[in-house]
Amino acid sequence: MSTNEQLFLNFRIATMDSIEGNPLGWIENGALAIRDDTIAWVGPLVELPASFQSVVKKIDGHKKLITPGLIDCHTHLVFGGNRIDDWRKRLEGTSYQEISRQGGGILSTVRATRATTSDVLLFAAKKRLTAMIAGGVTTIEIKSGYGLDEANEGKMLQVIAQLASEMPVDISATLLAAHAVPEEFFGRPDQYVELVCNQVLPACAPRCTAVDIFCESIAFDLKQTERVFRAALEHGKAIKVHAEQLSLMGGARLAAEFNAISADHLEYLDETGVAAMARQGTAAVLLPGAYYFLREVQRPPVELLRAYGVPMAIGTDFNPGSSPLESIRLAANMASTFFGMTPIESLLGITLHAARALRREDRIGSLHVGKQADFVCWDCDSPFELIYGIGSSLDCRVYKSGNKIAGD
Amino acid sequence: MSTNEQLFLNFRIATMDSIEGNPLGWIENGALAIRDDTIAWVGPLVELPASFQSVVKKIDGHKKLITPGLIDCHTHLVFGGNRIDDWRKRLEGTSYQEISRQGGGILSTVRATRATTSDVLLFAAKKRLTAMIAGGVTTIEIKSGYGLDEANEGKMLQVIAQLASEMPVDISATLLAAHAVPEEFFGRPDQYVELVCNQVLPACAPRCTAVDIFCESIAFDLKQTERVFRAALEHGKAIKVHAEQLSLMGGARLAAEFNAISADHLEYLDETGVAAMARQGTAAVLLPGAYYFLREVQRPPVELLRAYGVPMAIGTDFNPGSSPLESIRLAANMASTFFGMTPIESLLGITLHAARALRREDRIGSLHVGKQADFVCWDCDSPFELIYGIGSSLDCRVYKSGNKIAGD
Repeated sequence: MSTNEQLFLNFRIATMDSIEGNPLGWIENGALAIRDDTIAWVGPLVELPASFQSVVKKIDGHKKLITPGLIDCHTHLVFGGNRIDDWRKRLEGTSYQEISRQGGGILSTVRATRATTSDVLLFAAKKRLTAMIAGGVTTIEIKSGYGLDEANEGKMLQVIAQLASEMPVDISATLLAAHAVPEEFFGRPDQYVELVCNQVLPACAPRCTAVDIFCESIAFDLKQTERVFRAALEHGKAIKVHAEQLSLMGGARLAAEFNAISADHLEYLDETGVAAMARQGTAAVLLPGAYYFLREVQRPPVELLRAYGVPMAIGTDFNPGSSPLESIRLAANMASTFFGMTPIESLLGITLHAARALRREDRIGSLHVGKQADFVCWDCDSPFELIYGIGSSLDCRVYKSGNKIAGD
Repeated sequence: MSTNEQLFLNFRIATMDSIEGNPLGWIENGALAIRDDTIAWVGPLVELPASFQSVVKKIDGHKKLITPGLIDCHTHLVFGGNRIDDWRKRLEGTSYQEISRQGGGILSTVRATRATTSDVLLFAAKKRLTAMIAGGVTTIEIKSGYGLDEANEGKMLQVIAQLASEMPVDISATLLAAHAVPEEFFGRPDQYVELVCNQVLPACAPRCTAVDIFCESIAFDLKQTERVFRAALEHGKAIKVHAEQLSLMGGARLAAEFNAISADHLEYLDETGVAAMARQGTAAVLLPGAYYFLREVQRPPVELLRAYGVPMAIGTDFNPGSSPLESIRLAANMASTFFGMTPIESLLGITLHAARALRREDRIGSLHVGKQADFVCWDCDSPFELIYGIGSSLDCRVYKSGNKIAGD
């Protein structure tokens, strides 16, 4: 016997199941039937099979909108402290170098995160995640990367696991031990990479599904990146990469060759890299929050990614130093405004293509029979309203696996 | 007898009463006493006079933050329809000219507003304003400007008056009949200006405190602007101006010479204009939402405005075509990010300097004995948290004239 059967009818539905001529999978007057945690039927109301018409629990949408639950596929949601002082100093004219010298920068977040208990990290992350869920998010990726040793990377992943058990959303945990070279390894980055591969990764492997690395001149080079990729594959982990954010290092191409699920940032990505990503099915994750907050000027090659058919996802990159951006809808607005993604691309970027970037498109990202019943009922008429307003509020009811998790 | 006496103690308080060396009027452990609708005392807790210690209703802040109520000094909050189609088309590569030809642009909002009843305009504006109040706004300026004839400008001002009577905030109503040349006056802008001065303004004068005009190559020229200023002064109205947004027309300087209370946008403002504004005490209102949404590249001359001591206020410019930005805190973040205002300047820009731009600094904009008890208790420690997060949520309790109007 089913315990949870519900029929949502008289909704406008953007299924996000793109088909030729209907990129949003748009249904003008639709119905969505769920059974337990799964989508049992979706389509035009007039085509609703008789077997579903008898469902007792009916919700009339009065022509309001349903979309899939939103997916934030790149965040650093767990951290100690904040970086308000860095931000103030930067805007008051202090250089990045001087801020670092004064104890700011990413390593200040590492110090703060190491010094913060699991409980306090959890409390702060829950608060952030609660706000994101209220904004329509049903799946989120969260990275470690402010611990930079076995104990503290483990602590972060444990907090992420607790979030996953206590919060009503799916969380994809990524090990980002290779986020920066910690102070105790200054001048010895190769040794830190060995620590990551031989100690941190084996210890943390049970608590993560993917491994990520910051491949950049100020972080890890191509050789070190390859070393981490090989170790990740040995442990059966999916690969992700922070690449080409500040310069063209070739990290995205390398990641694609290692069959990475996504390469993220990509402002300086070239055509060779785009082609490699297209060939291997590596998704692009664009992060306009960091572009905005750091006042960058180089835009990722959206036209090339589009031409090569690389799926473009969008993440908030939520983190205290370079993207204190909580709203995935605002991230999508910024992706259109700054990067020239069309509104349709931006909507796909926070649904189906974000699922692609997590390799979970078989279960989430669009409203398709058999997929998880993750969806949002919005108090508006058009999916474009989600991303047209700049940080605007929008009432919604959020459903995860068939259960309402936010909204009145 | 007082009916409303409350003592807020153990709060960190940013009074925004700037003094040398303490630009935010910062009090580390402060108390704020209110009597009826007025601030009766504010200062360090240890200096609280005995007469206030006996107040029965005490609220312990546990070191959380109080700031003045936020002020949004430039909005177009009342309008019919939206401009999502314009936005989509623009991002999909259609030119502005083509969008206008297809019936988009500002005149599409004029058509929609004319076709919308007062009740529907009121309902939509209330929803927007409710969200803004929940975000800490206690005073807002709202312009007409989508009616462009006597009946419809009157309708808009009547909706604004209704908002003022039904919503628990102060609303400053501005007549912006000279926002664009309406279709029925195409090719005859001077005749439309005469209609504004001889008919619309006299009819609408009882419902507005200020008169505004869009001085720009695509709107009204300097001569027409001067004509409207003279008519406004004849009716005893304050003067505001949309100036130097897309080109240097000299509107800000002209407005200053007419003793305008503010000149707004100002991306192309030159030093002569800055000097005139400084001389006359005309406030600068910067509107980064429009700069962002329209992907402009010319930044207002913040360094010059700073050097000349012109108070810089920040507004959302909330409107459907060029700035669908609801959050004054995000506007402040953008003013720092895009325009290089320091965080202190941005905080002043949405409090004291916004009060200046409305010439209401005698009553609001800072926490000063005798001013209106408009303030916000924030669930954070530092005023910089208000504007550091990019569109982040932040719990708060909002007080207007001593009464709580939003928050738990």
